[in-house]
Amino acid sequence: MLHLHHCVSARSFRPLWMLEELQLPYQLHMLPFPPRAKARWFLGENPLGTVPLLVQGDVRMTESAAMCQYLAATHPDAGLDVAPTHPAYGAYLNWLHMSDATLTFPQTLVLRYGRFEPAERKQPQVVEDYSRWFLARLRAVETALIHSGSEHLCAGRFTAADVAVGYALLLAQHLGLAPQFGPAAQAYWQRLQQRPGYQRAMEVQVRAAEEQGVPTTPAPDTQP
Amino acid sequence: MLHLHHCVSARSFRPLWMLEELQLPYQLHMLPFPPRAKARWFLGENPLGTVPLLVQGDVRMTESAAMCQYLAATHPDAGLDVAPTHPAYGAYLNWLHMSDATLTFPQTLVLRYGRFEPAERKQPQVVEDYSRWFLARLRAVETALIHSGSEHLCAGRFTAADVAVGYALLLAQHLGLAPQFGPAAQAYWQRLQQRPGYQRAMEVQVRAAEEQGVPTTPAPDTQP
Repeated sequence: MLHLHHCVSARSFRPLWMLEELQLPYQLHMLPFPPRAKARWFLGENPLGTVPLLVQGDVRMTESAAMCQYLAATHPDAGLDVAPTHPAYGAYLNWLHMSDATLTFPQTLVLRYGRFEPAERKQPQVVEDYSRWFLARLRAVETALIHSGSEHLCAGRFTAADVAVGYALLLAQHLGLAPQFGPAAQAYWQRLQQRPGYQRAMEVQVRAAEEQGVPTTPAPDTQP
Repeated sequence: MLHLHHCVSARSFRPLWMLEELQLPYQLHMLPFPPRAKARWFLGENPLGTVPLLVQGDVRMTESAAMCQYLAATHPDAGLDVAPTHPAYGAYLNWLHMSDATLTFPQTLVLRYGRFEPAERKQPQVVEDYSRWFLARLRAVETALIHSGSEHLCAGRFTAADVAVGYALLLAQHLGLAPQFGPAAQAYWQRLQQRPGYQRAMEVQVRAAEEQGVPTTPAPDTQP
């Protein structure tokens, strides 16, 4: 059985969305944000105190983009993976890594120094630096979509890379950066939100939070 | 033929080290740091202006940890990959992603706001916040090495994950953070530096920089 520890709209939305795309059985454990402060018991499960945590038998993972690849590769019949022998394998890996290291991390700085830190520790310069940094890197998404002529990032079909990058767009929307997407990224983001798997994941997290007594307000995670 | 675009000691050291471990033929293109300012022609090759850029036929990659996985998976006989059917596959992917998103990005903030920005834009608070953030996350390396009883991060052998995480330790050494490694991480980092593949990569980048007329001083890349 797969166990996913999750805060509403945090990076752990990536594996939740993947689980719904794959229609796998799993148990969802909702946590208040930030778990390090509000669910101290969780440090026994994950000493980093971060979400996501994905547990399957002896497998314990903490990196959301890695989980997307893991779930896709261990369920190859679902067709969300790209094999090493496929011409798009390099692009697939590149998008998976770019989704978090290049497109999410800068946004966590915008969140941390623009919203979560107390007034005397807010850093408007860092917020501006990394909003621009994110939007500059996002041009890679715009260019790839235009040049490929495809509705997806790579391999000409929907893959785990679209889930991983899609979450970075969801986070950007929370931050108010979506109006600055290029037209191709804008249309891509609209298409992703129409997917039944995305919509189920959105519903599931709210229902589970209510059932488990955890606040349902989106709390994207800077994991400071 | 593989082409790697590289700045001395930047994140592009990851694929360079991998190429030397795999003993593949490749062409190394050295760039002054930062290429966006000092090698404007490079924007035609990679519009993001960042290193690394790895080109092999139609494959063009920009994420250093993704390149480690790509090179390992497309040369499985070399034994640096971990297959999806292996029990350590989840851990392998997790380390690859953690190496950049969790262990390198915080260090680029320390570099940017501690060293590269002009005096009036330096941010001592951010430098302190993300030095601590990095060292807190690095405890995952310490714990894994102690619990596994292995000399390597996963699968009981040297893999691409060790190269990817090893670069984060090299960068931490440049930043003066190495004395704060735990004893297991310290010993692991010493072992990695003894590898012939690591030592060849170190020599190759200096020789190539001299031949191509590029400064050989280490310039780890914040890619601002």
